[in-house]
Amino acid sequence: MTVTADSTTVGFVGLGIMGRSMAGHLQAAGYALHVYTRTRSSAQDLLDAGAVWHDSPGEVAANADVVITMVGYPADVEQVYLEPGGIVERARSGAILIDMTTSEPSLAARIAEAAAAKGVKALDAPVSGGDVGAREARLSIMVGGDEDAFDDVLPLFELMGKNIVLQGPAGAGQHTKACNQIVVTGNMLGATEALVYARRAGLDPKRVLESIGAGAAASFLLNNLGPKMLDGDFAPGFFVHHFIKDMGIAIAEAERLGFDLPGVKTALAKYEKLVDMGCREDGTQALIKAYED
Amino acid sequence: MTVTADSTTVGFVGLGIMGRSMAGHLQAAGYALHVYTRTRSSAQDLLDAGAVWHDSPGEVAANADVVITMVGYPADVEQVYLEPGGIVERARSGAILIDMTTSEPSLAARIAEAAAAKGVKALDAPVSGGDVGAREARLSIMVGGDEDAFDDVLPLFELMGKNIVLQGPAGAGQHTKACNQIVVTGNMLGATEALVYARRAGLDPKRVLESIGAGAAASFLLNNLGPKMLDGDFAPGFFVHHFIKDMGIAIAEAERLGFDLPGVKTALAKYEKLVDMGCREDGTQALIKAYED
Repeated sequence: MTVTADSTTVGFVGLGIMGRSMAGHLQAAGYALHVYTRTRSSAQDLLDAGAVWHDSPGEVAANADVVITMVGYPADVEQVYLEPGGIVERARSGAILIDMTTSEPSLAARIAEAAAAKGVKALDAPVSGGDVGAREARLSIMVGGDEDAFDDVLPLFELMGKNIVLQGPAGAGQHTKACNQIVVTGNMLGATEALVYARRAGLDPKRVLESIGAGAAASFLLNNLGPKMLDGDFAPGFFVHHFIKDMGIAIAEAERLGFDLPGVKTALAKYEKLVDMGCREDGTQALIKAYED
Repeated sequence: MTVTADSTTVGFVGLGIMGRSMAGHLQAAGYALHVYTRTRSSAQDLLDAGAVWHDSPGEVAANADVVITMVGYPADVEQVYLEPGGIVERARSGAILIDMTTSEPSLAARIAEAAAAKGVKALDAPVSGGDVGAREARLSIMVGGDEDAFDDVLPLFELMGKNIVLQGPAGAGQHTKACNQIVVTGNMLGATEALVYARRAGLDPKRVLESIGAGAAASFLLNNLGPKMLDGDFAPGFFVHHFIKDMGIAIAEAERLGFDLPGVKTALAKYEKLVDMGCREDGTQALIKAYED
């Protein structure tokens, strides 16, 4: 398939904070969009600019050459792809399906298999970079699946992201995203425990950030979320409950593969405490509250 | 005190990998050095260039306006400063003492108190940046103690480092270094568990680093030590046993202050396993071996 704005119809399912920005970039580049999302009002800007609404993911698939999904949980992914009348069942012959949700590697492999049985290719292509990365088309995109399909849809990925890497066969994108989230988990633990320590020891935590933010301890998260932690700004860039989902996927996959992730488990216990405190809709930087309770 | 190369004699105690580089910068700037270190051969380059050898830390102190120490453990710090005939006892009136070892905040406060009783000022000024930072005079220097003393010796710090911040009273430098090491601990956990996961999941871990090294998961350690982990290059930039010391200090201080550091404790358990495996002299990136055993 040669993907161009003139010849290719794109279906987009799931227009939350991330999906809306991503679909917008495709539309701005001239691609005809067919869309579905749970809350129709989320699609309004795209519809106003010419996108076509459908009443189900399957209907979107029946009208698109490439179908992109960006939903919430693995259960949602399974439903939109594999339910009767869903995306796989309704996909056009030769279509390419791309799930950009952070989901389970094994589910990605199952979808690719079900798609292949229908003569359709499926990629898993979760992203990192959050709402800002989506808005600025600077997402990191980690892809698993067929290489030809990857090459075909690369022009679409390039409209949404900057760092786009084919990591391996179906599921490899999700596995890579799990690696990403494992790193994030450790970095969040370290940043949070350090700032809790700084406060308890009577230091000026912002001055501490000046000392530690540029050397061996430097991380994107320390420097971007550290100041928010200290300001008590817990507005979500990335939801606590989505992060808990991601940690759960990593732990489950590790168990399946026969090894342990004690760091991730330590962080998960703290985040679960945070949910008990009523903070599931906070941003992940709210972790500091679980230490100060 | 006005510190200049013409008027100020500097004592330097502890000429390991770090201390040797740091003292060399002072000597290169024209400062007369008086030195002591446990293994005399470590001082040879400095002696060849004109430094004066003494047979004890106390002797060094008796001959210097500013005394800098860079030794191994808090027990060493306590000994060189507080033993009979040690630095505090032999220090010249008006001298400034600077411990740059990573050590205990409470010990730093005790040394400052003992020094003050003799009319001498003491700063704690641990560093971050490792052997490379020491060699390239790019250390981050975190200082606790008297502000006038800090201002006086700033010209010396500026010969050794780039990011030099007075964090508060005696002990605040050590507390800040503890914060730094807490962040490092989390970042090491995250980087290591992610790369272990990448291997176990059958990914190409170097390609995974391409995807995750530049986004939300980016950290100095992931990008600098990650490739070494994967190459099996465990040569020490920073020793496992020194890192264990630092984690022990952070945990002990947190207990004293009444809070918990579960992330640091999780990492410490893994590093203790590494010591049991005979890896105490490896670099901290050897953590990956504790997961693969």
